Amino acid sequence: MSIDIWTFMNVIGLLAFAVVGSFKAIREGLDLFGITVLGTMTALGGGITRDLLVNTIPNALRSVTDMSVALVGVWLAIVLYRIFKGDFKNRYFILIPDAIGLSAFTTTGAIIAYNADVSFFGIVILATLTGIGGGVISDVLLGKIPTVLRDDFYASCSIIGAVAFYLSVQSGVSVGSSAFICSVVVLMIRILAILYNWRLPRFS
Amino acid sequence: MSIDIWTFMNVIGLLAFAVVGSFKAIREGLDLFGITVLGTMTALGGGITRDLLVNTIPNALRSVTDMSVALVGVWLAIVLYRIFKGDFKNRYFILIPDAIGLSAFTTTGAIIAYNADVSFFGIVILATLTGIGGGVISDVLLGKIPTVLRDDFYASCSIIGAVAFYLSVQSGVSVGSSAFICSVVVLMIRILAILYNWRLPRFS
Amino acid sequence: MSIDIWTFMNVIGLLAFAVVGSFKAIREGLDLFGITVLGTMTALGGGITRDLLVNTIPNALRSVTDMSVALVGVWLAIVLYRIFKGDFKNRYFILIPDAIGLSAFTTTGAIIAYNADVSFFGIVILATLTGIGGGVISDVLLGKIPTVLRDDFYASCSIIGAVAFYLSVQSGVSVGSSAFICSVVVLMIRILAILYNWRLPRFS
Repeated sequence: MSIDIWTFMNVIGLLAFAVVGSFKAIREGLDLFGITVLGTMTALGGGITRDLLVNTIPNALRSVTDMSVALVGVWLAIVLYRIFKGDFKNRYFILIPDAIGLSAFTTTGAIIAYNADVSFFGIVILATLTGIGGGVISDVLLGKIPTVLRDDFYASCSIIGAVAFYLSVQSGVSVGSSAFICSVVVLMIRILAILYNWRLPRFS
Repeated sequence: MSIDIWTFMNVIGLLAFAVVGSFKAIREGLDLFGITVLGTMTALGGGITRDLLVNTIPNALRSVTDMSVALVGVWLAIVLYRIFKGDFKNRYFILIPDAIGLSAFTTTGAIIAYNADVSFFGIVILATLTGIGGGVISDVLLGKIPTVLRDDFYASCSIIGAVAFYLSVQSGVSVGSSAFICSVVVLMIRILAILYNWRLPRFS
Repeated sequence: MSIDIWTFMNVIGLLAFAVVGSFKAIREGLDLFGITVLGTMTALGGGITRDLLVNTIPNALRSVTDMSVALVGVWLAIVLYRIFKGDFKNRYFILIPDAIGLSAFTTTGAIIAYNADVSFFGIVILATLTGIGGGVISDVLLGKIPTVLRDDFYASCSIIGAVAFYLSVQSGVSVGSSAFICSVVVLMIRILAILYNWRLPRFS
């Protein structure tokens, strides 16, 4: 996968996640600091947690790029919220960039997990966590049950992508090509899930 | 302590903790992914947090065994919930395996803390965290005040066991025998606490 | 900055944070274990999280001093709560020691971040997290949106102090003097924020 598309997908993802997190914070009446924390943590929290788990100082603390893009996302959210008055008619407007982010983040997580000393479960957990961790953290900070645990076909896309990555690498395909497969699988399944309103079963 | 009893206690604990966590998730109406996260995190979350604090990649991400047992526990919970329709007449049915898990996990935490470079408080905190951390994480994910902080004589059993471990090791007893003492102390006190409904004081 | 003043500020901070956290726990009706966890985590949680992020075993687990002081703070809170029956007429009585703690913790965080391999954002995040992390963790454990995210001019004082530290170090001032500047800036701005009831803007 070319570096340029990869960078592009990550930037789209950081912006989309930061906008989603900031919107949640604005709706809850948080102040500017709360909005900034929710927005940047939604964008960077999954990657930070993953880096903690593989025992490295989080990239988000070492580079200035990711945090800068996330802060632009926070600013964008405040502007968009004012323009649209929090009423977004076209939900695809945010869902598609968010799906691109889920795909890019899951793939980054799978690659980093592969390079760490972890098992099959480790790869799936770290890839999924990179994709959904930021959203979970921001929901917990708002005292809510994370949406991803109760609804929607969202984390499942990451899990399927990570399994595809693992099978691909195990079959002798290069890490680069396996990463490409992972990101395409996540994106395609997530878009199907949005269009067809997929849900996982419940048991209560 | 023989490896076999030790392994047995850990498996019982992983299953019991996973069942308890999954039940909580089913009752809250979470979907299959939510149930899996709650169940496996209740079983593995304490150990993962402890491994983070002593600066190693969590064992749950490196081995496949623990995660596999926890997933069996999630499956078991879904089956049991259907059979009993969530109405468990005999509470000992879950409380005794849970007490075995608390004992095994606390002892593992005490041993790992002893081998890391930590103080007396570090040993007590890491042992207790290994025992109760998973339950705390799953309560937080459900937006609830962790049960262990408001009720019951549960964490206290871990604390007393960890103190017994520390005193025993400091008195020149081997780590293996001190671990045995720790696990017996935790189990005995927890069973007494269940039978006599012990509570800690409140001050409000 | 002399070691004595520094130690004094940290002890005041640990006590104040532990008292604030314990009060929250008592008011919520938690038991003795819950009060101890909330009190000690409010005092130590920010530093523990910071140490995790820079990849070292938390100092709170290695030394006995910090935990001992925090436990004295928990005891103090229980005594004070009984004497005043939870009704504190003079809010400065707790706000000023708390401001001293915010100043001391932020500065410790800035120094540790400076010695780790992090960016400008890393320094600001780790300094602020050291100051506010314990309060955030205790609010999350109580299922509440952290106060610091919705109200008050509190984290902002840490951010401004950390930026002052960074600019000072970058200008060639020694780390020791920059730390002094940081702690004075945080304390002065926090006291102004208390006296003038400063608030950050909201956008909802």
